[in-house]
Amino acid sequence: MENTAIHLIARPTTGITPDLFELRHSPVPEVADGQLLVRQTYMSLDPAMLGWMSADRESYIPPVELGEVMRSSGYGEVVESRHPDFAVGDKVMGMFGWQEYALSNGQGINKVTVDLPPEAVLSILALPGLTATQGLFNVGKPKAGETLVVTGAAGSVGSLVGQLAKAEGLRVVGVAGGEEKCRWLVDELGFDGAIDYKSDGLAEQLAALTPDGVDIFFENTGGPIQQLIFDRMNTHGRIVVCGMIADYLSANPAPGPNWIRMIKKRLTIQGFAMPDHFGQVPQLLGKLAPYVMAGKIKYRAHVLDGLESAITGLPLLFTGKNTGKLMVKL
Amino acid sequence: MENTAIHLIARPTTGITPDLFELRHSPVPEVADGQLLVRQTYMSLDPAMLGWMSADRESYIPPVELGEVMRSSGYGEVVESRHPDFAVGDKVMGMFGWQEYALSNGQGINKVTVDLPPEAVLSILALPGLTATQGLFNVGKPKAGETLVVTGAAGSVGSLVGQLAKAEGLRVVGVAGGEEKCRWLVDELGFDGAIDYKSDGLAEQLAALTPDGVDIFFENTGGPIQQLIFDRMNTHGRIVVCGMIADYLSANPAPGPNWIRMIKKRLTIQGFAMPDHFGQVPQLLGKLAPYVMAGKIKYRAHVLDGLESAITGLPLLFTGKNTGKLMVKL
Repeated sequence: MENTAIHLIARPTTGITPDLFELRHSPVPEVADGQLLVRQTYMSLDPAMLGWMSADRESYIPPVELGEVMRSSGYGEVVESRHPDFAVGDKVMGMFGWQEYALSNGQGINKVTVDLPPEAVLSILALPGLTATQGLFNVGKPKAGETLVVTGAAGSVGSLVGQLAKAEGLRVVGVAGGEEKCRWLVDELGFDGAIDYKSDGLAEQLAALTPDGVDIFFENTGGPIQQLIFDRMNTHGRIVVCGMIADYLSANPAPGPNWIRMIKKRLTIQGFAMPDHFGQVPQLLGKLAPYVMAGKIKYRAHVLDGLESAITGLPLLFTGKNTGKLMVKL
Repeated sequence: MENTAIHLIARPTTGITPDLFELRHSPVPEVADGQLLVRQTYMSLDPAMLGWMSADRESYIPPVELGEVMRSSGYGEVVESRHPDFAVGDKVMGMFGWQEYALSNGQGINKVTVDLPPEAVLSILALPGLTATQGLFNVGKPKAGETLVVTGAAGSVGSLVGQLAKAEGLRVVGVAGGEEKCRWLVDELGFDGAIDYKSDGLAEQLAALTPDGVDIFFENTGGPIQQLIFDRMNTHGRIVVCGMIADYLSANPAPGPNWIRMIKKRLTIQGFAMPDHFGQVPQLLGKLAPYVMAGKIKYRAHVLDGLESAITGLPLLFTGKNTGKLMVKL
């Protein structure tokens, strides 16, 4: 039986291009005692993957080594098991990489026991949902009646953050690119307002939509709107820094806001990354699942077809051209 | 009996000038039931006072209204009391303002029961010590073996932060203006290193003095060294934003660092201001006093003479020309 995998063979400099990757075939590995074999059926494509591809050893997890299979999270089924906790047929999610079959010792793999289609599992329960839940609840500490502004609001994490905050009784304003995404946020997801960051009069739009200021700023993008949102932060406001997608590919990332307002308003800015919290996945899923089961969470999946579509698909995340949670069906 | 007071009559625009103030005389007020009268003997001059003078209603406490006595903290003795908790002769500290006599209902006034000279009380126990203790312990959360960098290190708050951190077993590097201040930090206060922010090669100096990176950055000043310290922050590092004295008088405050590193290193930046914590003064003094009594805390007082010297003295804080905790002896 043959495994097909995509390996990282070069570091991105200005963008994600096909020459960074190589398709390789190899025999599916033998399953030893304590191991299991997963046939992956869906792979998730996420903005964080650009960081994992870079040579930056300063980041929160080591980069993918050149020659290794590209790192990614995914969904699949156990097809062989010599591990006591997993049986053939179990639905699982984990960091399986860009390949059809993944061998594992079970570490970091979570069984999917809820009755949801794989697209929903990857859109809501996997990395986006864990990230949104950790960031919103454990970092942002939302209280009913507060105002939250989320950037990248139509993205996989942002759309969940906004919906969870709405379910908690907050006023929610989303920032996204383009009128269509903004309409989706308000009409479908029930946001109180949305701002197209490509439009004019951003400061005025923001002021009109946040008449009581901003208590929680959930930052997924960076870009010029960051300063405008920062300028509206209320006393004891919290800023959750989850992503800076506008700056990841920039040689000269834009500076951030001056810190005087940090003192005046006693703000907290906190960066976080999910790998610090993989040990808390069961608790995070326990927090998230009731919202999903209560039908509070809608999603849009953008499904690409076939392993190789990952290579041309990943750049969509950095141009905002994806129209939902980006994933690959194998 | 006559009271002399200095009133704020105009807002600062480019600096602190004598025309912003007016000396006024009035009878010492009658003491009613539940009140006490304090004869102030020492007034503290602090950087935060510039903020209190400005018209910025966005700040953490309301500005001093035009025509009011200028706000300040100080030290004095109860000379008349119809308040059950205070007796004539009690030594007290509180927000007495720029005046000789202050009438109070007792709120926010703390009795000084330790046997220290008034200069030490104002230099260590009053606003600087409370601020340093709150910021270092409750925001910075220091652990032995970590590295702390403090800016404005020769200032009233910074010098205490560094000494407290040393006493807790941290490596401490101070940033100050001028060789003489830097020598004082290392030779007298026992800092592990000091950097003159007016010198060349700041990045190299900082790298040499923080070989294991920076875990806690206690920010009192702003200025170009902020970015350099930020660039050396370790994973899960904490940045305590206490002051931005370099920017308070600037029409165009410099931007801050980009937030990408916030995610990569999962940093927390937190601004704080003492008025949020006045309710915790007894606990903060309880934390601070043992260090003082154990002789771990040295200080330098810069004492001006006479009420009116406050007017010409306050600007010294913004040019770095004071040579210790600035105060006025009445």
